[in-house]
Amino acid sequence: MTRDSTMKTMLVAARANADAFADRFREELPDHRIVTEIPEDGSSIAYAVVGRLLPGLLASLPGLELVLSLNAGVEHLIASGEVPAGVPIVRMVDPGLVDGMVEWVAAQVLAWHRNLFTYREKQQRTAWEPAGEKLAHERTVTVLGAGALGGPVATMLATLGFNVRGWSRTPRDLPGIATFAGTNALVKAVTGADVLVSLLPATAGTTDLIDRALLDRLARGAFVVNGGRGAAIVDADLIAALDDGQLSGAALDVFRTEPLPADDPYWQRDDVLVSPHVAAPTHVATAVSVMADSVRAWERGETPAHVVDLDRGY
Amino acid sequence: MTRDSTMKTMLVAARANADAFADRFREELPDHRIVTEIPEDGSSIAYAVVGRLLPGLLASLPGLELVLSLNAGVEHLIASGEVPAGVPIVRMVDPGLVDGMVEWVAAQVLAWHRNLFTYREKQQRTAWEPAGEKLAHERTVTVLGAGALGGPVATMLATLGFNVRGWSRTPRDLPGIATFAGTNALVKAVTGADVLVSLLPATAGTTDLIDRALLDRLARGAFVVNGGRGAAIVDADLIAALDDGQLSGAALDVFRTEPLPADDPYWQRDDVLVSPHVAAPTHVATAVSVMADSVRAWERGETPAHVVDLDRGY
Repeated sequence: MTRDSTMKTMLVAARANADAFADRFREELPDHRIVTEIPEDGSSIAYAVVGRLLPGLLASLPGLELVLSLNAGVEHLIASGEVPAGVPIVRMVDPGLVDGMVEWVAAQVLAWHRNLFTYREKQQRTAWEPAGEKLAHERTVTVLGAGALGGPVATMLATLGFNVRGWSRTPRDLPGIATFAGTNALVKAVTGADVLVSLLPATAGTTDLIDRALLDRLARGAFVVNGGRGAAIVDADLIAALDDGQLSGAALDVFRTEPLPADDPYWQRDDVLVSPHVAAPTHVATAVSVMADSVRAWERGETPAHVVDLDRGY
Repeated sequence: MTRDSTMKTMLVAARANADAFADRFREELPDHRIVTEIPEDGSSIAYAVVGRLLPGLLASLPGLELVLSLNAGVEHLIASGEVPAGVPIVRMVDPGLVDGMVEWVAAQVLAWHRNLFTYREKQQRTAWEPAGEKLAHERTVTVLGAGALGGPVATMLATLGFNVRGWSRTPRDLPGIATFAGTNALVKAVTGADVLVSLLPATAGTTDLIDRALLDRLARGAFVVNGGRGAAIVDADLIAALDDGQLSGAALDVFRTEPLPADDPYWQRDDVLVSPHVAAPTHVATAVSVMADSVRAWERGETPAHVVDLDRGY
């Protein structure tokens, strides 16, 4: 059964770049009406493109058929309770976002692996001192959340020469990667790893997953990279593990509260690299192309790719 | 014609790790005598494994057949005038060294591309400020010296998503890379590039190659990475280009004088990352395996791989 698509209206409620998104949608979906403000009669809106949600927005759209998320993580949409029952949420898995995450994780892992910040510190002391270099094949990296984002990340790390393990909720097959699935395999997946990369979504099952017990399974002096969601890490445990040398550093792009509050201890630490949630920004062109595909699939009567499963939370 | 190999003696004159190299050679070449000191009668030495040369060393070895360099760069061996005419020099091209260089260049290019040092500086000001991220396919990287080391580097950068150009003295074919060869193609190879990677050897033809005129051909705000040899860059020109914003930064692992003198202006610059010639350290196991192959090839009467052409200088 195909669905009616006669001049359907899409609301682009992006907080940033709304006009750029709308212009691009007009090119991709010329037979649709694209608006960036709610018209007087909100019932004409069939599709809503949303990032961080304005409270009450979705409730004012009684004709809503589909929610298109600008983010890969949709926990805030689910938690809002504002998405009407039966209206699918499509999360963003766009090639630009995947590429951005692959590049950002590779940058962080290689910068630690090749001691770039250590040499910056030595430079500040005018010290010509080799730090002791290893090759990638002498390091093991574990990627938690080896799915739509983490799979390509794990594959690129393996291409760079690292020994890579991938862990996910459900079994995955990734060539050249040692894969582990489910809670029971978690300890095995992380034991002895030199680098732990978290790309976990925020779900009930991932909150506080990275705690002291898990960090203690890593190799002494390990490095933690978080490009997923802040709630996966018990921050006090991470800081304690840094303080006693179990960890040598961390690169954190996501936090429980964003922007990271000015009095958060992470800001002041030399062994933590803070970045402002920039690992995998949504790119207008690739993101619109993916969302337009979802709309077209919907109007053909199909289920779009990456519709959120409310039970698992992503 | 095979050459005599009856209990030939090898002198391992490495300044660092000589015993580790010697032990490994004893495993790889059990039918040879391996020494780390010159015996009373130097004429028994057929093979010399050398890094930085001790003056007079080679002159005391009248039976020398083959010089095995621990480094990819052999300009100091040629310049010493101590290698007897007709004795081949084999330069080091070992897989560990290639992997190390690939990893180091990828680390530097990605760290700049994803603004890691910019975010460190913002962190020091408690500033939650996106710097503006691009994807690798929006950047162009030119690799100068796209040969035994630079070819694999260029290929990995392309795998990471960058637009990559490779320039070399003689034509090379690298899948997925736009290749340029010879002096006349140099300007075309670098024009508009966002990143310039030099892996050039030190030869008469590469000294001072990277001067102000060449730097001005790069995109405004470009980044320079030098993992080759220091003499390729006119340091005063690089500093001037940093000062006026034509360059946004540089990562330098090699210098005209090493260790870099304490009063060198590079030490004090935030926009230059100085490292102590650690991009591609020689790894004992892989290096010995490659050198033992060279010895065996020599004794079979063949020319070992990577024998230095004294005219071109590498």
